Amino acid sequence: MNDYKSRLDGYAGMIESALPAFLPDAKDSAVAQAMHYSLIGGGKRIRGALLLAVFELFAGEERAEEALPFAAALEMVHAYSLIHDDLPCMDDDDMRRGKPSCHIAFGEAAAVLAGDALLTLAFEICTDEKNLAVFGAGAVLKAANALAAAAGTSGMIGGQWMDIDGEGKEVSGDYLRKMDEMKTGALICYGARAGCILAGAPYEKEAALARYALDLGLAFQIRDDILDKTAAAEKLGKPIGSDDKNRKSTYTGLYGLDGAKREAERLSGTAKAALDSTGLEAGFLKWLADYLLERGN
Amino acid sequence: MNDYKSRLDGYAGMIESALPAFLPDAKDSAVAQAMHYSLIGGGKRIRGALLLAVFELFAGEERAEEALPFAAALEMVHAYSLIHDDLPCMDDDDMRRGKPSCHIAFGEAAAVLAGDALLTLAFEICTDEKNLAVFGAGAVLKAANALAAAAGTSGMIGGQWMDIDGEGKEVSGDYLRKMDEMKTGALICYGARAGCILAGAPYEKEAALARYALDLGLAFQIRDDILDKTAAAEKLGKPIGSDDKNRKSTYTGLYGLDGAKREAERLSGTAKAALDSTGLEAGFLKWLADYLLERGN
Repeated sequence: MNDYKSRLDGYAGMIESALPAFLPDAKDSAVAQAMHYSLIGGGKRIRGALLLAVFELFAGEERAEEALPFAAALEMVHAYSLIHDDLPCMDDDDMRRGKPSCHIAFGEAAAVLAGDALLTLAFEICTDEKNLAVFGAGAVLKAANALAAAAGTSGMIGGQWMDIDGEGKEVSGDYLRKMDEMKTGALICYGARAGCILAGAPYEKEAALARYALDLGLAFQIRDDILDKTAAAEKLGKPIGSDDKNRKSTYTGLYGLDGAKREAERLSGTAKAALDSTGLEAGFLKWLADYLLERGN
Repeated sequence: MNDYKSRLDGYAGMIESALPAFLPDAKDSAVAQAMHYSLIGGGKRIRGALLLAVFELFAGEERAEEALPFAAALEMVHAYSLIHDDLPCMDDDDMRRGKPSCHIAFGEAAAVLAGDALLTLAFEICTDEKNLAVFGAGAVLKAANALAAAAGTSGMIGGQWMDIDGEGKEVSGDYLRKMDEMKTGALICYGARAGCILAGAPYEKEAALARYALDLGLAFQIRDDILDKTAAAEKLGKPIGSDDKNRKSTYTGLYGLDGAKREAERLSGTAKAALDSTGLEAGFLKWLADYLLERGN
């Protein structure tokens, strides 16, 4: 395993270990149990890892742990979105991360509430007064506010609606790009931005890292579209062909497999070029762009 | 109309006028349209009015408008909870505030996302940097954090789950009280606490006003149980008998109509007694406890 891969695994491990302590006791209720079930284990933690890596880039390796509450909050927002996306009235997917979806395991009512609760808890964690002493009030407020903006109607929720609204329709390349930038890019972009905000990075570095992360996020989503066509279900942890079943608009549908691969490669290249413009020692982030392009799940 | 009633109407009017500017343009998407549909018009704005009234008590009448973003955020959290509670997998209610429920008007997918978006937007509004200059960073973070705590698994969501989990079961009076304190009391209590936090009120006043609001909230929920039995559907704006249909645990079910009325009166009394202990000029808040006890919708 190369150094960068073990560094990514290190971030994922830190996040995985930190998450349970933020959750209510699973014995409290079926909703608390469903929160544990959907949040813990199985996630790649790309979003949280990106937040920690960017934070470290400016604040130093010895401080990475300080940003864990925000990485945990980001992973909670991601997990809530998966729970709600899998609901019968949304994408109606029965499998997620290699096990039954939350509503299959706990029923729809508990799944709706577990998603609601993870979203709510993410903001409770961000606004905890413990963060005040570490980052200063201005940075904490800005990081919490940016999370809400990334997750809302001009970000993730807006993209998810474009996804549902576009089902069975012939959409344009512009529509698809905007949808994926909002649905997937916004939260990945937040990871990079929050790392900058919390470390007090200069604004021009934040802007460059946001460009990197937005293209990275788009390439990530295109890779998702490709895997939905080509991967083995047991490796992916969810059913393949789900996009076709729901008549989803995808990059593979619009540009074909080869066209989608070329676009993902192009975006991975522009992501890395945005890093070059910063003059930062960003070897890990460059490697991450290549790694996500080749991922098999 | 007495002075206190016109004051309550004044708060509600301020909130109603302020809400649209916080929302995305309704023309953006069906989700944005659903947010307008479920948030604007028809609500009594008790929660937001309580926040403004308590803030005014400490900060002065001329400053009431400053707390409007937090009153708006509180009403958004309340509106989101109604949208999700009405879903088929939850209480399956077709009418709300005198018109078809959100999922009846916009479909389930848009309703789930509109609820998610109102919750997310509430936190975006609370953490807006404009609030920093007005209240100071410590107060803003504390008020945002308390909203998340009140809305989460140890508050509203936890109570909503107890409500669903208790359907068709014989529950104890303790269960019912805890459920209603969490489901309804927590958010009403937040209104009083946020008013104190934002105005920088001394902690012992905040504690007394929280006791007032928790008992007020419980009396409010018991009144809801009574109205579900006795009111005319057109006046209530939602179907009557919904609790019986869902085999809900209610105060009228456990104590009978008269028993429930007596308990609501008792709680209204203890709420007012908590106010007396503060030595504040709290005539409006006392009147509010009586008014909510007599309300017909």
